[in-house]
Amino acid sequence: MSKTVKPIVGIVMGSKSDLPTMNEAGAILDSFGVPYEIRVSSAHRSPDKTTQYASGAKKKGLQVIIAGAGGAAHLAGAIASQTVLPVIAVPLKSPLNGLDSFYATFQMPSGVPVATMGIGKSGAKNAAFLALQILGTRYPAIQKKLMQHKKKQAV
Amino acid sequence: MSKTVKPIVGIVMGSKSDLPTMNEAGAILDSFGVPYEIRVSSAHRSPDKTTQYASGAKKKGLQVIIAGAGGAAHLAGAIASQTVLPVIAVPLKSPLNGLDSFYATFQMPSGVPVATMGIGKSGAKNAAFLALQILGTRYPAIQKKLMQHKKKQAV
Amino acid sequence: MSKTVKPIVGIVMGSKSDLPTMNEAGAILDSFGVPYEIRVSSAHRSPDKTTQYASGAKKKGLQVIIAGAGGAAHLAGAIASQTVLPVIAVPLKSPLNGLDSFYATFQMPSGVPVATMGIGKSGAKNAAFLALQILGTRYPAIQKKLMQHKKKQAV
Amino acid sequence: MSKTVKPIVGIVMGSKSDLPTMNEAGAILDSFGVPYEIRVSSAHRSPDKTTQYASGAKKKGLQVIIAGAGGAAHLAGAIASQTVLPVIAVPLKSPLNGLDSFYATFQMPSGVPVATMGIGKSGAKNAAFLALQILGTRYPAIQKKLMQHKKKQAV
Amino acid sequence: MSKTVKPIVGIVMGSKSDLPTMNEAGAILDSFGVPYEIRVSSAHRSPDKTTQYASGAKKKGLQVIIAGAGGAAHLAGAIASQTVLPVIAVPLKSPLNGLDSFYATFQMPSGVPVATMGIGKSGAKNAAFLALQILGTRYPAIQKKLMQHKKKQAV
Amino acid sequence: MSKTVKPIVGIVMGSKSDLPTMNEAGAILDSFGVPYEIRVSSAHRSPDKTTQYASGAKKKGLQVIIAGAGGAAHLAGAIASQTVLPVIAVPLKSPLNGLDSFYATFQMPSGVPVATMGIGKSGAKNAAFLALQILGTRYPAIQKKLMQHKKKQAV
Amino acid sequence: MSKTVKPIVGIVMGSKSDLPTMNEAGAILDSFGVPYEIRVSSAHRSPDKTTQYASGAKKKGLQVIIAGAGGAAHLAGAIASQTVLPVIAVPLKSPLNGLDSFYATFQMPSGVPVATMGIGKSGAKNAAFLALQILGTRYPAIQKKLMQHKKKQAV
Amino acid sequence: MSKTVKPIVGIVMGSKSDLPTMNEAGAILDSFGVPYEIRVSSAHRSPDKTTQYASGAKKKGLQVIIAGAGGAAHLAGAIASQTVLPVIAVPLKSPLNGLDSFYATFQMPSGVPVATMGIGKSGAKNAAFLALQILGTRYPAIQKKLMQHKKKQAV
Repeated sequence: MSKTVKPIVGIVMGSKSDLPTMNEAGAILDSFGVPYEIRVSSAHRSPDKTTQYASGAKKKGLQVIIAGAGGAAHLAGAIASQTVLPVIAVPLKSPLNGLDSFYATFQMPSGVPVATMGIGKSGAKNAAFLALQILGTRYPAIQKKLMQHKKKQAV
Repeated sequence: MSKTVKPIVGIVMGSKSDLPTMNEAGAILDSFGVPYEIRVSSAHRSPDKTTQYASGAKKKGLQVIIAGAGGAAHLAGAIASQTVLPVIAVPLKSPLNGLDSFYATFQMPSGVPVATMGIGKSGAKNAAFLALQILGTRYPAIQKKLMQHKKKQAV
Repeated sequence: MSKTVKPIVGIVMGSKSDLPTMNEAGAILDSFGVPYEIRVSSAHRSPDKTTQYASGAKKKGLQVIIAGAGGAAHLAGAIASQTVLPVIAVPLKSPLNGLDSFYATFQMPSGVPVATMGIGKSGAKNAAFLALQILGTRYPAIQKKLMQHKKKQAV
Repeated sequence: MSKTVKPIVGIVMGSKSDLPTMNEAGAILDSFGVPYEIRVSSAHRSPDKTTQYASGAKKKGLQVIIAGAGGAAHLAGAIASQTVLPVIAVPLKSPLNGLDSFYATFQMPSGVPVATMGIGKSGAKNAAFLALQILGTRYPAIQKKLMQHKKKQAV
Repeated sequence: MSKTVKPIVGIVMGSKSDLPTMNEAGAILDSFGVPYEIRVSSAHRSPDKTTQYASGAKKKGLQVIIAGAGGAAHLAGAIASQTVLPVIAVPLKSPLNGLDSFYATFQMPSGVPVATMGIGKSGAKNAAFLALQILGTRYPAIQKKLMQHKKKQAV
Repeated sequence: MSKTVKPIVGIVMGSKSDLPTMNEAGAILDSFGVPYEIRVSSAHRSPDKTTQYASGAKKKGLQVIIAGAGGAAHLAGAIASQTVLPVIAVPLKSPLNGLDSFYATFQMPSGVPVATMGIGKSGAKNAAFLALQILGTRYPAIQKKLMQHKKKQAV
Repeated sequence: MSKTVKPIVGIVMGSKSDLPTMNEAGAILDSFGVPYEIRVSSAHRSPDKTTQYASGAKKKGLQVIIAGAGGAAHLAGAIASQTVLPVIAVPLKSPLNGLDSFYATFQMPSGVPVATMGIGKSGAKNAAFLALQILGTRYPAIQKKLMQHKKKQAV
Repeated sequence: MSKTVKPIVGIVMGSKSDLPTMNEAGAILDSFGVPYEIRVSSAHRSPDKTTQYASGAKKKGLQVIIAGAGGAAHLAGAIASQTVLPVIAVPLKSPLNGLDSFYATFQMPSGVPVATMGIGKSGAKNAAFLALQILGTRYPAIQKKLMQHKKKQAV
C-alpha cells in the first residue's frame, strides 16, 4: 500500500469485520498507484469520529471517499452529509442478502448524493474503479491507465 | 398542544413536508396531556443540528424521542447514535411504498437500537402510543389512561 | 442470571429452539444487572398461556416485555394486545430469511404498538438495549451504565 | 342473507372498514343458500372477544371460519389457535399492497394451519368458495351446486 | 400407512424429489389413522394424468387433495380447476426460497380457490392438519383427536 | 385484422378483461400482415377448453402461441404442457403490480419452457415481436420487415 | 458436440465461469443433434465484440441465440438490440439469488423482446428446449423429436 | 441553459418521455453555471448511436455522463462499457415502481462501475449534484458553490 504518500482517497467502513471486503478496493487503488487511507468508523457507534473524519476530509487532501456498511447502512450518507467530496457507497452483505444495506443507501435526499455500487466485494472493487474514474477526470495518467485496463479486461 | 409545559417527548422529522404525518403522533400525546416539542432536522441536510438536538435531548428533559424519515431514512439512527434515550422510528411513505424507509431503519447494529413502527400515519400514531407506554412505566397516571384507552378501543 | 431478584423484564419466545437467539438479550441484561425471566409460550400453540402471561405481566412487576418469534410471528402482537407495558419484538430467522417474521410484526394497528428490532441475534441484543433505555428513563443507574457502554463501544 | 337460520360459517374481520371486502364472501354464501354470521373482532384491539368467539365457534354450530385482516394480520392465526375448525384467511389490502398481510398470514407453525387465499376482494370470494367446498364434502347438495357453478363459470 | 383402506385424502406432487417433504403430510395422516394415497403427477410434464386424477378424485372417494409443487407451481391450481373438492397447496422450496412457488399458488381467480400453506416441510405438515380439520367437520372422531392434539402441543 | 387467412399465431388470454392489453399484440401482428386468432380460455375456469386448444394448435396450423394471464398465471404453462410449439407468456398487471403474474410464469420445469415477456401492454407488444422473430427464422419476408422496423425505431 | 457442422444456435455468456451452467443448454442441443457454438463475450467488458457477434449472427447462419448473464444482466438485451433473431435469456444466479439478473432481463422496451427463462441451470436447459421449439417450427424432424421427448418426460 | 459553451456534462436518456425527469438534472447544472448537453439515445433501440456517443464522449470534452433509463435499464451500463468517464445512473420509474430499473443498474461487473442514484426525479437531481461534486474535485469554484449550497439547504 502506498501509505507513505499523502492519501487522496479515503476508505471508511463501519466495522473491522468489513476489512476483507473493503480491502478489495484498496488492492485496486494500489495497482493504480493511488495513495489512500483506511479507517474504521461506525456512523452509529462512533458518530462524532465519523463526523470529524468527513468534515475534515477535504482539508487533509482527500478527493474521494469510499464508504462500506451493512444493515441499516448509514455510513456513506453520514459522510455525504458533512462533505462536498464525492462519496461512493458499498452496501455490504447482511443476513437479508444486502437488501437492507442497499435500501438504506441509495434513496438519498436531493443535494446529498451517494454513488451506490453493487453489493459486497464486487461493489468494493467497483468503488475503487469509480474513484479512479473520478480522479481520472483530473489526472490524465490515471485516466490513461484506466483505458489500458479497460482493453485488457475485455473477454 | 401542551407547549407551555416543559416537553418530555421530542418529535423530530427530516422535512417540513412530514408534518401532516408526524402531527398524528402529537395529537395523541396531546390527548394524553403529555407535553412535547416538534422539530424539523434532517440527518443528511442538517447533520450538526441533528447531532446537537440528540446529544442535548436528555439534559433538556426529554425522555423519549420520536423520529420520522423516509427513503434512506437515517434520522432515527443518527439520533440513537447520540443518546441513550429510547428512540422510536416512523418509516415514512416513499415512491417505494416506504419499504426503503423501513429497511433503512430497522436493521441497526447492536448497542444502538431503534424501535421501529409501521409505515406512515398509522406508524406515527403508534410511535406516540409506544412513547406513552414507556412513560407509563414511570408515571402511573399515564399508564392508567393507557389502560382506559385500551378498553375503549376494543371493537 | 440475576434470577433470585424479582424480574422487571420478561423475555418470551414461541419455541424452545429460539433460546440460543433470545439468550443474547438475557446476557446483556445480566451484564447490566437487570433481573429478568425467560418464558416459552407460543401465540398459536399456547394462546391462553400467552394471554395470561401478558395480562398478568404488569401486576407481577414486569416493566418491559421482549418477544421473539418467527414466520407468521404473532407473539409480540398477541402480548401487546393484552398489556400497556412496552413490548419489544425480535423477528426471528426463517426459511424466508426472516422476511415473513418482520412483515408479520411491524405493521401493527394504531393503539397496539410493537417496537420492532432487527432480525435474529443482533435484534435480540438490541431488544435488551432498548429495554435498558426504557428502564433508564426511570432508573438513573441504568441510564448511566448505558452512557458508559455507549462510549466504550465507539470504534 | 339467510340470517334466520343458524349460521354454519362465521365471517370475522378486524375492522368495520373491512366490510365491503368481506361482504363479497357473504354474497357468495348467500347465493348458495348457506347461512352465515358476520362479526367484527380485532385480534389486537379485542383479543378476548376474539378468543371467546373462536373457542366457542364449534359449540354454536359453526363449521368453517373465514377471517379477513390486513397489515400485521393476526386474526386468522389467533382464531386458529383456539379452534380445530378449518380457518380460511383473507389477507386484506394495505399500504404495502397486502404483501405484509400475506406474509403475516401464511407461514403458520405446524399444527395450527390457516388456509390462505389471495389478497383482497378476490380472496374474499375464494374464501367463500373454499368454505363451500369444505361444506360440500359433507353436504351433497352444496357439492352439486358447486359443480354446476364450475361448469357455468367456464369461459 | 393405512393403505389397505380406501383412501380419503390424495397427496400429489410434481416430482419424486418432493417425496421427503410431502411424506411429512402422510406421516401426520397416518398418526390420525386417516387413509390416503400418494401420487407423483406433474402439471407441466404429465398434464393429462393430472387432469384425470383431479377429475376422478371425487368419484374414487377422495374428500380432500393436498398438492405440493415448486417454482412456477401450478399443480394445486391445475387440480382445483378440475374438481370441487378442497385443494390444499404446499409451495415447495426453490432457488428463490419458495418465493416463486407461493406467488404462483395463492393468487387464484375467483371460483377456483386453493388453500395455501407455508413453504416446505412445515407447510406439508399443516396441509395434513388442515385436511384433518376439514374431515373433522364431518367425522367427530377426527375432530376429537384434533382437540386432543391441540392440547398436547401447547408449550 | 387478417382474419380471413388461416391464422399462424394464436393469442390466448384468461379473461375478456385482458383484451385491451392483448390486442396490443394483435395490432403489431396486423401491421406485419401476419394472420392470427384471438381466444379467451382460462387455465383455471376452462381447463378442458384450454387443453384442447393447446393440443390441437399445431394441427390447425398455428406456429406460435402467445398467452396472457395475471395473478397465479398458469395459462402459458398449461398451454406449454400440451404442445411443442413455442409459447410466449405475457404476465398481466395485478394488485401486486404483476409481480405474482411474473413469478407464476417464468420458473418453469425443464422441458416445458415458456418465453416470458415484460409485464402488461409493453410485454404484449414484445410477445408479438418475438412471435415475428420466430416466424422470421422461417419466412424471410417477415425477417426483412423486422429489420426495417428495427432501423425505424432507433431514436 | 456437433461442432463440425455449421452451427445454427449461438450460446453466449458473459464470463467463463458461466460455462458449467450454460453447458446444460449445449448438452440438450447435442442430444437433439442440433449444431451450436459457444462464445464468451461480456456486454460490459467486451461491448464491441458482443455487438459484432450479434450483428453478424444472422449472416453466419445462426437462427436462435441463447444468452446467459447475471447481476446487471445486459447480455441478452445487448444482443437483441443488434439482431432480429430470437434471443433467449438465462438469468444466472447471483448473490441476490438471481433477483437482480431477472429484473435486469425481462422488462425490455417494445420492439426489442428477450425471451426470459427461469434462473440458472434449469433455465439454461429450457433455453435449449425453447430454441428447439423455435427451430421445430421450421424443421419437422426437430419438432417430431420434441414430441417424443414430451411423451417420455411425463411422470 | 448554458448551451453556447462547450458542454462538460452529458445527460442521456432512453426515451423522449424521460425528459421531464432528466431536466431536473439539467436545471441544477444550470443553476451552477455548468454547461451540459442533453441526448436521447436508447441502449436497445439505438445501440450504435449510444456506443458512438459513449466512446466519443471524452474526446468531445465531456467529463461526466448522466444516464437515465427505466425497466431493463441498460443505458448507463452500455455507456460505461465504452468509456472511462464516470457514469451516473438514474433508475427511472416503471410499472414496478422503478425497482426493476434499479436492479438492472446497480449490480455491475468489476471494472465497469455505474454510480447509481435514487429512483426518479429525486435521483435525477442527485445525479447533477454528484456530477458537480466530481467536477468540484477539479474546479474549486464549483466546489465552493457546493459548500454554499450545502449550508443553505440545512433545515
